[in-house]
Amino acid sequence: MGVHSGIRKHATHCGYLLIMVFALFSFAATGQTPQTPQAPSPIKLMPMPATVTPTAGRLLVPQTFSVGIAGYNEPRLERAAQRFLRDLSRQTGYFLSERLADASRATLTIHADHGGEPVQDLGADESYVLEVSSAGAKLAAPNPLGIMHGLQTFLQLVEVTPEGYAAPAIHVEDTPRFPWRGLSIDVSRHFISMEVLQRNVDAMAAAKLNVLHLHLSDDQGFRLESKEYPKLQELGSDGMYYRQSEMRELIAYASDRGIRIVPEFDMPGHSTAWFVGYPDLSSAAGPYQIERRWGIFDPAMDPTRESTYKFLDKFIAEMASIFPDRYFHIGGDEVNGKQWDANPKISEFKQAHNLKNNQELQQYFTVRIEKIVSKHHKSMVGWDEILTPGMPKDIVIQSWRGQESLAEAARQGYRGILSSGYYLDAIQPAEQHYLVDPVSGAGATLTAEQQKLILGGEACMWEEFASDESIESRIWPRAAAVAERLWSPQQLQDVNSMYRRLAAFSARLEQLGLTHRSSSEVMLARIAGTDDIAALQVLARAVQPASLTIRETEAQKAGGIQTSDVPLNRMVDAISPESEAARKFSSAVDLFIASKFQDTTVESYIRQKLQEWRDNDSALQSLLQNSFLLKEVAPVSQNLASLGVAGAQALDYIDAHQAAPAAWKLQQVAMIQQVAKPTADLVLAVAPAVQKLVEASSAAVVAP
Amino acid sequence: MGVHSGIRKHATHCGYLLIMVFALFSFAATGQTPQTPQAPSPIKLMPMPATVTPTAGRLLVPQTFSVGIAGYNEPRLERAAQRFLRDLSRQTGYFLSERLADASRATLTIHADHGGEPVQDLGADESYVLEVSSAGAKLAAPNPLGIMHGLQTFLQLVEVTPEGYAAPAIHVEDTPRFPWRGLSIDVSRHFISMEVLQRNVDAMAAAKLNVLHLHLSDDQGFRLESKEYPKLQELGSDGMYYRQSEMRELIAYASDRGIRIVPEFDMPGHSTAWFVGYPDLSSAAGPYQIERRWGIFDPAMDPTRESTYKFLDKFIAEMASIFPDRYFHIGGDEVNGKQWDANPKISEFKQAHNLKNNQELQQYFTVRIEKIVSKHHKSMVGWDEILTPGMPKDIVIQSWRGQESLAEAARQGYRGILSSGYYLDAIQPAEQHYLVDPVSGAGATLTAEQQKLILGGEACMWEEFASDESIESRIWPRAAAVAERLWSPQQLQDVNSMYRRLAAFSARLEQLGLTHRSSSEVMLARIAGTDDIAALQVLARAVQPASLTIRETEAQKAGGIQTSDVPLNRMVDAISPESEAARKFSSAVDLFIASKFQDTTVESYIRQKLQEWRDNDSALQSLLQNSFLLKEVAPVSQNLASLGVAGAQALDYIDAHQAAPAAWKLQQVAMIQQVAKPTADLVLAVAPAVQKLVEASSAAVVAP
Repeated sequence: MGVHSGIRKHATHCGYLLIMVFALFSFAATGQTPQTPQAPSPIKLMPMPATVTPTAGRLLVPQTFSVGIAGYNEPRLERAAQRFLRDLSRQTGYFLSERLADASRATLTIHADHGGEPVQDLGADESYVLEVSSAGAKLAAPNPLGIMHGLQTFLQLVEVTPEGYAAPAIHVEDTPRFPWRGLSIDVSRHFISMEVLQRNVDAMAAAKLNVLHLHLSDDQGFRLESKEYPKLQELGSDGMYYRQSEMRELIAYASDRGIRIVPEFDMPGHSTAWFVGYPDLSSAAGPYQIERRWGIFDPAMDPTRESTYKFLDKFIAEMASIFPDRYFHIGGDEVNGKQWDANPKISEFKQAHNLKNNQELQQYFTVRIEKIVSKHHKSMVGWDEILTPGMPKDIVIQSWRGQESLAEAARQGYRGILSSGYYLDAIQPAEQHYLVDPVSGAGATLTAEQQKLILGGEACMWEEFASDESIESRIWPRAAAVAERLWSPQQLQDVNSMYRRLAAFSARLEQLGLTHRSSSEVMLARIAGTDDIAALQVLARAVQPASLTIRETEAQKAGGIQTSDVPLNRMVDAISPESEAARKFSSAVDLFIASKFQDTTVESYIRQKLQEWRDNDSALQSLLQNSFLLKEVAPVSQNLASLGVAGAQALDYIDAHQAAPAAWKLQQVAMIQQVAKPTADLVLAVAPAVQKLVEASSAAVVAP
Repeated sequence: MGVHSGIRKHATHCGYLLIMVFALFSFAATGQTPQTPQAPSPIKLMPMPATVTPTAGRLLVPQTFSVGIAGYNEPRLERAAQRFLRDLSRQTGYFLSERLADASRATLTIHADHGGEPVQDLGADESYVLEVSSAGAKLAAPNPLGIMHGLQTFLQLVEVTPEGYAAPAIHVEDTPRFPWRGLSIDVSRHFISMEVLQRNVDAMAAAKLNVLHLHLSDDQGFRLESKEYPKLQELGSDGMYYRQSEMRELIAYASDRGIRIVPEFDMPGHSTAWFVGYPDLSSAAGPYQIERRWGIFDPAMDPTRESTYKFLDKFIAEMASIFPDRYFHIGGDEVNGKQWDANPKISEFKQAHNLKNNQELQQYFTVRIEKIVSKHHKSMVGWDEILTPGMPKDIVIQSWRGQESLAEAARQGYRGILSSGYYLDAIQPAEQHYLVDPVSGAGATLTAEQQKLILGGEACMWEEFASDESIESRIWPRAAAVAERLWSPQQLQDVNSMYRRLAAFSARLEQLGLTHRSSSEVMLARIAGTDDIAALQVLARAVQPASLTIRETEAQKAGGIQTSDVPLNRMVDAISPESEAARKFSSAVDLFIASKFQDTTVESYIRQKLQEWRDNDSALQSLLQNSFLLKEVAPVSQNLASLGVAGAQALDYIDAHQAAPAAWKLQQVAMIQQVAKPTADLVLAVAPAVQKLVEASSAAVVAP
């Protein structure tokens, strides 16, 4: 699987909002006026539980806070409780004892009815009930999975107050909407270290995601040690692969957090890295090199030779012994068929077996692979392409093509998960992912029985334009918006509420040790060659990376071929995929216009931002001149200054109760549309709001 | 060893500056005027090498940069070269291949004459010669230790330029001034995780420190697994201890970076944690509990019983097998003797053995322990107290008492290392540590032969008021100032140069993964309960923690006993020990006054800061009201506003060419001295500079 384009936006169901949820989020968006004391903060849970009932009072969380286990117990449950105490320590700065207390005296009592399955199953019950009162908290669940989720909910409830740390009194009854809530990480295009994978697991647990899908092989690298076929990693990875012992540790780490790991070994295409060590697997004579470019390439396994299946049988047997999960992903996407067409023996085989085209040849391959996978007691997962007449109903389709493809599979009785619309590397706002629903669109036309076959979805992070140091900022916090879509009631569609809670979630992640923000600062300092980067950060906050499609197009236009060797050390790589500052500014402009230009507090915030941008270009000059990595950024900084000037002029017109001249407006809008175009793969995310302001200033003028 | 006070400042030798070094640092301190393009940046090496000769040109460092090993080779050297490539990747964002190149074609060629000792020795040659020209770089050293240091130097030379990454052409001949350059970390008062210790080792390697001294036991915790005496860690550590396998890994990790690990097990005092599991070791009947308070306590080992020595013989044998280093630290400090006085059998023993007092009793103990230590092929290290008539000359004295104590030891023929003056937990500016020299003061009166007995020094980080999340900010970057004192020529005394290079070093550390800055942000966000902490950061940058002495005194005044359970989650724990912003502001004020109020660029910087402080208090109100942890900070914020107002008024007088009235000045100075007093364990570090400005405004007025 690679860089798919054509991600479709979905019409969303405008269902009713749960009354409770609505009550929690009915407060108005604030204009960020730091002078006014803040209202008691609303509950910032993410993902939002199925039902939440606030009750009276709150539970203080002092350093004597303790946890006790009543009912069923097992080591995994104890570790979860101890981890909870460690997390709470981090969140409060208290030195909490990790020793579990007697359940009758504990502040928080945990009660699981029974244990979980030795290997976490897709259908496992993940529900829990959490009751917080001023006297204490009780968390109950059928099994440890629900307990883990409930502990995460409790952690999110604890906040600093004027009187100490506290959790509001509340009654939560919660269960996920979908059983398969995944994050897929491509570790082939750029290698991702175990340390970073672990941090992602931590974040997944916080977001109640439960499947980590690892894309372990592709043209650009084979990333897991095979003892049966050691040349896979020895020649196919540049030395960058996981040892089996490391992978086993990660599996245990994830399992302890209620997360399954599903391995993917892409076949028969996307497989050049296999052939460096084992050219006989391929459909054309070798030798092969690890592919350095991005794209879809010719090499494919030879589906006509028995030796291919013998190899894969042994290989899958080995991998099945490492990954305990029931599901085994064989990729199966994007075979261009060129090697097959060029190989006369393969043509003969097709004729002999009455396979009309390469699609049917791949179907032949997939059917045989499915038999091998199921022989090793696994259910096969693959991308849309694996859906083939005669496939057993046991397989799972992961759809990069979209809801229609997924719905079609369901109509045929196949289970599926949605990834189209959830591609994090595409660089879309969280909002866009959030509003994609696995069973809206074509999915909405399914019967209730068919809808049950839609198991959930996976956020996907392809690694062409991300590496160890930027992947966290690419995934988080936006993946949590997908997590909420997959966990919470479908009716939850309030984007403003989502963003408010996402911001709180993001801040929590830094406390868990994620580097999605701090890494950005370190990268900016590196780019600038100094840590005196205040001016660079003003610019960084006002921009966003251009979409993936634009970045690819620009690279092609520049004549450069984008490869895995090209450094990802530019400004575009260091910044967040979504500008929080732009969103804030934009909603301030909306508020200001809605107030008919009367809200002076909001206006002064807007003016201050515009001035900051106007003045920032000169403040940035010395940095721009100092670093070769900032040369491309210079015009963006100038453009930001132009936006600042235009916006400030618009405010001047408004303050003078004088409609801005039409000619001026036209000129400014033309300029804004010009500067809004991507430069250096950066987009000035604040441009649309400035344009709105300019347009508003030339419209009706409100008297004082 | 504990919280020692009485750290003395030393008169420093005003020696000549090396011409070369002087040339490198003769540029004037800038007033941080971001508009003017920066001059080519000076070489920012830290510690400064013994000799540095800049030559013409520079070496570009592109993604094809490669390293080759000529001459002697060994796995450790290869790992060092690969680590260098990884570090360089991090520093540039390039995907550098870790594969070593053919030496004849490599950009950087490494040549070691021979291998190092299997166990790194105190006297090992650490010198190297580094030659960088536009054609390439050559690094030569007698053994791998020098190579490692030279690689660090090269990394510090690489910087971003308008044309790409580059290292200036240069000839460096370098060797350390002292062979023992240590960092001591107390892991007993608060446990420090292995992960954090590893990061400290990374930072030590960057600073060319070569001894990590671990204070592994004290009244508050016994932190290393003993298999001989498992109750030591089982009952003496609250479960927070290092497994032997973990310690062995850390030793290997450090050794790979040219760093020795010296363990300390404090005896016969500071040993309560031992007695929880083994009360018979003590001089009074048990049972014992882990000590939670800070201070000097009564429990001490019984030096009169043979069983004590049998126990310690076995124990030291076990520990000697874990730590390969030649040196073994037995502490030996601060025995108050109360348990000895109260025990009739011990009194009898003293009489029987003609030991006149407890000091002589401890000497008896120390002599016997030294025999055990040396039986296990180790040289004993201890604090000043172990210096006892008749001790073999093989021991090493670590001095917390000061240079006089150290000099006295040297006069008697004993080797010593200085720690007095290098206590990082005392919260002093880097400058103060920097100007303390092991052989100045009393040391300067020694003969050349005697001076050679002064082996170097150790920066000490006691952990009463630091924990895993704050220790990095407490140690770094200030420890690098001590590292330079111990590595570089004594004549290097330019504090401004040191601070400039320290800032660059500090930024590098974040790139190495240290959290001394990012952790501060995370803690501030936690304290505030939001990550919208711009106003809190303005305050945080203007303050410093009060000195350790003041913090202790304040805690006592408040009637609270400071214990290991007290959370370290306040503002004082989150901020940097030294305010860079205050130093910058202060030097701007000095520049402005020196310019006779003519430098308008500097003035506008000063005014902007003063206004920022003046306005910050109201911006901070909502946060202050939201968090119980910020209540104590409210008056500090008000005081900062008052400083802003006073300073701005002073500027107004100056701009009006009007001497400020004497009454106004007196009033302001009184106010400043009032607000300069510690509140909430915070000191307004910018107060003295504001006072200077106020005083200057009432003095002679310069005409326009």
